Amino acid sequence: MKLQVDRHAASPIAQQLEESIRHWIQENGAGGRRLPSIRRLAAELDISRNAVIDAYERLVAIGLVRSRPGSGFFIADGAAVTPQPSLASTPLQEVTNGLWGLFSANEHSLKLGCGWLPNAWRESEDLTHAIRQVARKSQSGIFEYSTPQGLQELRSLIQERLRPLAISASAEQIVMTSGGSHSLDLLVRMLLEPGDVVFVESPGYYNLFGLLHLQRVRVIGIPRLADGPDINRLEALLAEYRPRLFYVNSVFHNPTGSTLTPAIAHRVLQLAEQYDFTIVEDDIYADFQHTPTTRLAALDGLKRVIYLSSFSKTLTSSLRVGFIAAPPSLVQRLVDIKMLTSISSSRFAEQVLITLLQNGSYRKLTERLRARLSNQMALALTQLKQVGWVVFTEPAGGMFVWAKSPVEKEALMESARRFDIMLSPSHLFFPDNQTTPWLRLNIAYLQDPRAKAFIAANSDQGNTPK
Amino acid sequence: MKLQVDRHAASPIAQQLEESIRHWIQENGAGGRRLPSIRRLAAELDISRNAVIDAYERLVAIGLVRSRPGSGFFIADGAAVTPQPSLASTPLQEVTNGLWGLFSANEHSLKLGCGWLPNAWRESEDLTHAIRQVARKSQSGIFEYSTPQGLQELRSLIQERLRPLAISASAEQIVMTSGGSHSLDLLVRMLLEPGDVVFVESPGYYNLFGLLHLQRVRVIGIPRLADGPDINRLEALLAEYRPRLFYVNSVFHNPTGSTLTPAIAHRVLQLAEQYDFTIVEDDIYADFQHTPTTRLAALDGLKRVIYLSSFSKTLTSSLRVGFIAAPPSLVQRLVDIKMLTSISSSRFAEQVLITLLQNGSYRKLTERLRARLSNQMALALTQLKQVGWVVFTEPAGGMFVWAKSPVEKEALMESARRFDIMLSPSHLFFPDNQTTPWLRLNIAYLQDPRAKAFIAANSDQGNTPK
Repeated sequence: MKLQVDRHAASPIAQQLEESIRHWIQENGAGGRRLPSIRRLAAELDISRNAVIDAYERLVAIGLVRSRPGSGFFIADGAAVTPQPSLASTPLQEVTNGLWGLFSANEHSLKLGCGWLPNAWRESEDLTHAIRQVARKSQSGIFEYSTPQGLQELRSLIQERLRPLAISASAEQIVMTSGGSHSLDLLVRMLLEPGDVVFVESPGYYNLFGLLHLQRVRVIGIPRLADGPDINRLEALLAEYRPRLFYVNSVFHNPTGSTLTPAIAHRVLQLAEQYDFTIVEDDIYADFQHTPTTRLAALDGLKRVIYLSSFSKTLTSSLRVGFIAAPPSLVQRLVDIKMLTSISSSRFAEQVLITLLQNGSYRKLTERLRARLSNQMALALTQLKQVGWVVFTEPAGGMFVWAKSPVEKEALMESARRFDIMLSPSHLFFPDNQTTPWLRLNIAYLQDPRAKAFIAANSDQGNTPK
Repeated sequence: MKLQVDRHAASPIAQQLEESIRHWIQENGAGGRRLPSIRRLAAELDISRNAVIDAYERLVAIGLVRSRPGSGFFIADGAAVTPQPSLASTPLQEVTNGLWGLFSANEHSLKLGCGWLPNAWRESEDLTHAIRQVARKSQSGIFEYSTPQGLQELRSLIQERLRPLAISASAEQIVMTSGGSHSLDLLVRMLLEPGDVVFVESPGYYNLFGLLHLQRVRVIGIPRLADGPDINRLEALLAEYRPRLFYVNSVFHNPTGSTLTPAIAHRVLQLAEQYDFTIVEDDIYADFQHTPTTRLAALDGLKRVIYLSSFSKTLTSSLRVGFIAAPPSLVQRLVDIKMLTSISSSRFAEQVLITLLQNGSYRKLTERLRARLSNQMALALTQLKQVGWVVFTEPAGGMFVWAKSPVEKEALMESARRFDIMLSPSHLFFPDNQTTPWLRLNIAYLQDPRAKAFIAANSDQGNTPK
């Protein structure tokens, strides 16, 4: 296998290598043949291992190469004859194309696949009032940078909010961010080096997968079951890999709607101790939960666990406020990276949130949302069951149901187009982009007549398109 | 020279290598001795070149090692006997410590060294009005994510604002960000790989240096003169290095206050063509300028030049709004990275800005600011000259004067402490952290009685401390 790269060419080394391997495969076939190890190929071509990893990952993404955990990379069967998608189809772009789709969808189409509440659910009175109050009263609120870590008053209020979850974090352990994605980005940059291994849940949050690809880390999926990550599989993969961190979405998991049980939480932490990895606990759906369940951060006391949450799902996606609660030893560096990459978050947004947390209106808002979601969830589960849809698990709350129609996926997608319903691209929820019959449904949209008709039309009584 | 690293140890490879070299130097001395090349050491220890670069950079930062452009790294003279500062003193932390200092300064101390306008200059009426208007009228403005690229309407208004600067950018070439630092961060992530070479101006914007260190790139300073970057030095260094990009702050340069001349702009672009590098033109002080001067982006037509600016310096640092105008081929990837790392910027902030741009109040605000700054600049230059301070150049506007007191730096710092005046850490403006007699003064604070007394006390009539 003769491969060449030119370090003076305009295109990146990884891309050159990918193309070189692609041409070789298309000329020589040899499905099942093992590719050189990352280390060997890097040494032979005198390029970085990251460039090799990147090239192999691109080839995996377009189906020419298969990765077998522990034993390396192999040319996929039939790779030589499969027509290849364009170069545009890198893992990163797969994800962003999916996101673009959600954002640029026709305004009138029903966003049954999206990850946010419908505008009709939003209550503007309290938020508008708080905004006007900050604008009127706070000169610093409308003009100044926030402090590097975020306003002390807000961090103290968040400290209070974490108490019912049994998470003890001092205000000094809390770092304000511009939302959940920003939190993840800061953590990824602080904790990961290119080539590191990261475990994620599969299915899981696809924006994270794109972010990890951007950082050039190896992403390995741990199956997500109804009670949390698949512990047996986690243990088996830990024997082969030494992940730097494991990302877990504990409560009302995206996309399955499932919630971590105490027993699984305990086992995950034991394994983290044994295999020395960090856990990022993403809890952005926390405020949709009525009775708190076990958090990893609560059991662990924020030693190995870094916890994050945000106000985007409940209050507003526009103002961009999230936070991280971290082990004390990590706070300074986290804030350093935040300063270098953004100076500070929005002081205005932080002050608006302080107002709503202090006057109790945020608490009342989340109570109303929980009641409404709980009601919608019950309706959704009944509605799906009646027409023969299968659910992965019956979520105790939150926005998502992970459901499977009795109808073939292709017919289902066609039907969604006819009803002008936007579904989320399910394969993106899997780090290896596997095709799947499961769909993430946002229950807040499921009582819309179009959604009802769509579900009913794709029932076990046969597909009856209008 | 025997060096060892343990890839299974808890501490990062680069840190181990740094410590290992440090011990070797302290035991063996040998100032002036050349260290192994990055490539050789990486191969010998089977570690990444980035780890070696990182270790060498840390050693440079603490003065144990000197980098000689083109010929490698050498043990500094006297390195073995110099007491070493703590490990905390990495280039990145130097910068963030400087930033922390500015942010955490006593509220009552006079921030003569800071990079923003005094609160007393801020005019709240129009901004408050716009905020209240958006809160009242726009349901989407207070709740929804913005679009991935930023609101179309705002991008069209920015397109109009670029026209008088002779920069032709369609709204499709403009990407909204959460401020200047966020813009730089997105560009750094899109354009740079660890180990790449980047040219910056020296002195220049120190937050950028920290950001570049974070991305593990090699930072090389091009002297900034009164008419722009030192073209001779730039040309000489281009013969030795192939930078991926050159960062230029064209107008009212931070910290010198100087402005790029058309002739230098033209030469920089010729060299960019000849040596095939990208230019990032930072123009965040643009709106302080009354009569537009030549922009690199205007001459180049946004082919090799990526232009950025923000509203933080004029309107508000709290709402976090900036933008990038980029060559069309880069826009999609830029937005992809923005989505993965933050989903979107604040729609609320974008709508507030739309309001202020549309109703003309932003234009009037900047007119008032320019008149006021121009007046303050004239006063400052007279004031400094009278007492024998030297200015690097007489800025035509903006906030900064780069000035040198007739008094020794140490006495000057002591005097500043006595007057409760916060100066900026001058060495940070140099990518190699060189000590310097120059100070960045923010002229908007210079008529404060404390500032006047401080300047007068450190005159060529001798230091007359009270």
